[in-house]
Amino acid sequence: MGHGVAEQLISEHLVSGEMTPGAEIALRVDQTLTQDATGTLVMQELEAMNLDRARTEVSVQYVDHNLLQADEKNAEDHAYLRSACRRYGLWFSKAGNGVSHPTHMQRFGIPGKLMVGSDSHTCAGGSLGMLAIGVGGLEVAMAIAGTPLYLQMPRIWGVRLTGELPPWVSAKDVVLEMLRRHGVKGGLNRIIEYHGPGLAQLSAMDRHVIANMGAELGATTTVFPADEAVREFLRAEDREEDFREVLPAEDARFDDTDEIDLSTLEPLIAKPSSPGNVVPVREVAGADVGQVVIGSSANPGLRDYAIAAHMVRGRQTEDSVSFDVNPSSREIFADLTKMGATFELISAGARIHQAGCMGCIGMGQAPAVGHNSLRTFPRNFPGRSGTKEDAVWLCSPETATAAALTGVIADPREVAERLGIEYVRPEMPSRASVNTDMLVPPLEPGEAEREELVKGPNISALPDFPPLPDRIEAPVLLKVPDDISTDEISPAGARALPFRSNIPMLSEFTFSQVDETYPQRAREVADGPGHLIVGGDNYGQGSSREHAAITPRHLGLRAVIAKSFARIHWQNLANFGILALEFVDPADYERIDQGDTLELESLREGLSESPELTARNVTKDEQYRLHHRLSERQVEAVMAGGRIPLLASMV
Amino acid sequence: MGHGVAEQLISEHLVSGEMTPGAEIALRVDQTLTQDATGTLVMQELEAMNLDRARTEVSVQYVDHNLLQADEKNAEDHAYLRSACRRYGLWFSKAGNGVSHPTHMQRFGIPGKLMVGSDSHTCAGGSLGMLAIGVGGLEVAMAIAGTPLYLQMPRIWGVRLTGELPPWVSAKDVVLEMLRRHGVKGGLNRIIEYHGPGLAQLSAMDRHVIANMGAELGATTTVFPADEAVREFLRAEDREEDFREVLPAEDARFDDTDEIDLSTLEPLIAKPSSPGNVVPVREVAGADVGQVVIGSSANPGLRDYAIAAHMVRGRQTEDSVSFDVNPSSREIFADLTKMGATFELISAGARIHQAGCMGCIGMGQAPAVGHNSLRTFPRNFPGRSGTKEDAVWLCSPETATAAALTGVIADPREVAERLGIEYVRPEMPSRASVNTDMLVPPLEPGEAEREELVKGPNISALPDFPPLPDRIEAPVLLKVPDDISTDEISPAGARALPFRSNIPMLSEFTFSQVDETYPQRAREVADGPGHLIVGGDNYGQGSSREHAAITPRHLGLRAVIAKSFARIHWQNLANFGILALEFVDPADYERIDQGDTLELESLREGLSESPELTARNVTKDEQYRLHHRLSERQVEAVMAGGRIPLLASMV
Repeated sequence: MGHGVAEQLISEHLVSGEMTPGAEIALRVDQTLTQDATGTLVMQELEAMNLDRARTEVSVQYVDHNLLQADEKNAEDHAYLRSACRRYGLWFSKAGNGVSHPTHMQRFGIPGKLMVGSDSHTCAGGSLGMLAIGVGGLEVAMAIAGTPLYLQMPRIWGVRLTGELPPWVSAKDVVLEMLRRHGVKGGLNRIIEYHGPGLAQLSAMDRHVIANMGAELGATTTVFPADEAVREFLRAEDREEDFREVLPAEDARFDDTDEIDLSTLEPLIAKPSSPGNVVPVREVAGADVGQVVIGSSANPGLRDYAIAAHMVRGRQTEDSVSFDVNPSSREIFADLTKMGATFELISAGARIHQAGCMGCIGMGQAPAVGHNSLRTFPRNFPGRSGTKEDAVWLCSPETATAAALTGVIADPREVAERLGIEYVRPEMPSRASVNTDMLVPPLEPGEAEREELVKGPNISALPDFPPLPDRIEAPVLLKVPDDISTDEISPAGARALPFRSNIPMLSEFTFSQVDETYPQRAREVADGPGHLIVGGDNYGQGSSREHAAITPRHLGLRAVIAKSFARIHWQNLANFGILALEFVDPADYERIDQGDTLELESLREGLSESPELTARNVTKDEQYRLHHRLSERQVEAVMAGGRIPLLASMV
Repeated sequence: MGHGVAEQLISEHLVSGEMTPGAEIALRVDQTLTQDATGTLVMQELEAMNLDRARTEVSVQYVDHNLLQADEKNAEDHAYLRSACRRYGLWFSKAGNGVSHPTHMQRFGIPGKLMVGSDSHTCAGGSLGMLAIGVGGLEVAMAIAGTPLYLQMPRIWGVRLTGELPPWVSAKDVVLEMLRRHGVKGGLNRIIEYHGPGLAQLSAMDRHVIANMGAELGATTTVFPADEAVREFLRAEDREEDFREVLPAEDARFDDTDEIDLSTLEPLIAKPSSPGNVVPVREVAGADVGQVVIGSSANPGLRDYAIAAHMVRGRQTEDSVSFDVNPSSREIFADLTKMGATFELISAGARIHQAGCMGCIGMGQAPAVGHNSLRTFPRNFPGRSGTKEDAVWLCSPETATAAALTGVIADPREVAERLGIEYVRPEMPSRASVNTDMLVPPLEPGEAEREELVKGPNISALPDFPPLPDRIEAPVLLKVPDDISTDEISPAGARALPFRSNIPMLSEFTFSQVDETYPQRAREVADGPGHLIVGGDNYGQGSSREHAAITPRHLGLRAVIAKSFARIHWQNLANFGILALEFVDPADYERIDQGDTLELESLREGLSESPELTARNVTKDEQYRLHHRLSERQVEAVMAGGRIPLLASMV
């Protein structure tokens, strides 16, 4: 029995482990991708590791998220990232060059390669037959430094495509159909692998649309084969020499299977406020629309803009609608302009924005309350648009443009017929407007070491994380209930987020929604014994943000003792050298009070010798049995003060 | 002796008064212009006046300032403005249609007309032979309601232009030369009138550049004749029928005179952080540049972008520079795209932004600290860019583009020679891409009355302002020293500004830098006697913002008793029905304490009968002699509760 594409890619990159679903495997990483919202921390991590030079084949830092520049912090981040790329041997993609995912695909994507990226839509790289996985920033930093990626072997979910898409139905409707069938958790612990005769009609950029929103299905990643469509794409990008065929074996078998007959699909739309709320457009037709936005990594292709331009040619969008267009990359903007589509869009009333993520990550384009906004974006979680009580719908460019022309949600098939718009499959140029001048290449070794890091006032170095002492005797500064989320530990939002490159400043917001006195009380003992936190069940649930481990660590947190931990935060605590300990008897949680002093002894030997240890409550003269679930690798990292100091001690 | 253009325009619009410099004149208003940052208040004022329908020939509301939409407030303002325009018979120019000044010139400007606008660069309309004056929002609202504009007759300053501009020197250098010679107060109480043979070379859009930055000279406005260049401009805009010749008399004499030989000019630049810091570019050549921005109403012409596109054609901008281009109007963006310039700019690395003011008013594009930013904008006051410690320089598109190509400040003549760039005067299309579909026309009477105002949660109606009672007995809630500025009364900045459409919310920031308890204390007595403020000399200096009168009035302020008032704030107090009284004996200031209760009697008859009145200090049983400087018009307005209730009582 042969392998599918996903298994071939895993097998080729396997450093250790068994390819059995659920088993830990380690994979060699060829490429990395970072963007500016997560990249500044990655660069600070490289700095803290004393990295000399990136050890990947290609690592690229994109600037696409924070382009508004409402104050100096964005521009300072950009200048810092540029200097760090030059220092550490990374490529730097300037603001205006485009959204990371389509731009990476155009310039760097190579079939058969394995990429990790500190962005959840990194999986879009699967459109070229790559294994591309979104992970946390430190995992990317470690990959840049040459360490493999560890993950649990996912199940492979083969989705067979047959038939041909009807007019006015496009790739976005395929992935919306997946979401309609399986919801936002349908892909958990799975790699989705598309195959079958239906692929023939889908260009590499169409596949990008489908691979990108695998993230919304919760999948580890999505893969497509590298076939003639991929060769054609690379040829248009002047990179045919990078093509390598990666096809599934004829007799490939998958752990799970599904099938979609493309000819049966119709225009679909995700209602507010989840990508999983998918219904046929016709079921919600007629609702007023205040804004339409075309752009983002979920519909980034030249075709996606060209079909919109075709629909509005010689027509005007409704005057009650703001029709926003943000090209996904400089190359696509140039091609759109060359083919006349930019002129058509402007003439029809489009507000053309700079190439970047923009409204997709809530940087601008926030809609008015009470006005529906139709977007070709991947996500519509409540408030993500920047408007707290928003009403954001997700759909194809065809459906979005139909709404711009009519001022209401409307099935594009019906609108086309009513307005006499002929269906075309837009003609794509055989050669793209390739231009690499906004990609700043890595400096040569020798030159790179002389590059100074450019740090504006808002960019701090990552703080030092000292090794774990053999004995901790420290106060419990905070005792919290069950289900504390990383949002409560380190809040996001407009007040805190601008400081994401500045750990000392960001630390001042730690636990601000739980106990505002925590940062001050923590600082008072930080230079002495540090402090402990006692938590309930599911401590650290929610967002994967690393800051929820880094900021309390910066304030002197040495260990969290809880009933249980959420998976990603537990990993992050280990990564940043904080001991995560669980009660053997959960009832002991009740016996500890905030303010008690606890003592942990013989940690350096104890942790590796046994999963169990004992805490003594000095205040109450009691003892509690605790255990840890750290692997040998993780024990080593925690004892060194975290993975960064550990790596720094090895290079 | 004949009249110049300015005197002809004044004379044709004179309703009352003598055309003697310093004397009060009243002028009939034909057109008004508002933008979104000031317009929401203007619309709230129209609402408070119970206006039925605009009485001007043309009134246009532009959306160009707040386009970032970082949250829902911007989009809600836009929806509110659109509905108010439909209700009151104004034109509405949608977000994306362009910056008010060039767009108004393209679509509505008519030689010989008089326009007021709630934007200081309204004076740009002088490029078409209009008398166009920037004023406060309420003055515009009053004009929309049909009342004349009152102002002191300015001196007329004739500036004769001779000779021809050399290559790489353009209109921006002409107005920078004026600023080099005369500084930012050189135009105070003057209308600048350009005349002479040098005009022949300057297109209407070139004249816009010069007229626009008359505001930076402090001039009341700037005028140019309406000659063949204006006819040619209107013809390209499909509006030749709106042309009317307005030329100065051959023997026109001016109150003041100056002369510029254009052939002697060279590229100039205003150093940080004042438009008056002008030096030749060659004197500052070589300094590193981190950002270049082309756009704004100070260089809005197609030519200004076309020359930049010509310079970068086939070249790349420096990778250390962010090259930002924001087209000034949709029409110019369309023309630029049609002529291939958009493609050239994108190819050279430009970040193309939506048409609007953007960075010019600190909405985005904020530079990094320590990095020079060269902009074709009109102003570089410290921090206006959004970056507190910025370094913003003002220059022509030629000088800006030379910096983008080289990464340093450089004389464009030298750069052109070094890089082999041939000098051209860009060919302009004889017909512009005229497209009026983003201009929402006024509704017909009948239909207009049925239009509902669309008010998001952040848009409040202007509060009611009751008439002045005949007797006030109220506490002095605040006693403040000399030189209190309107910034201290009603702060701007990112925290307060988003609430500019929401007087109740904005009121909570009143005097926050002086006494945080003021709003709460004021509210406690607002429904009873209201309150008083005692001030020193020069009360209300600084910015002209109306909010500094409206927000304390909303909190119940009835009278300010001060040693003296700053001119504009004194006017605003009268406009919004707050009694401004001065001590006859300034020493009495010392006798009043915060917390004292004062009594003012027989106000309704007393104010019109005599400039003097008496305040009794009930707490201390003392009396103080006070006087007011209100005209009869103003007394009537104050007694009615302000000009809005006065007008509402008349319509």
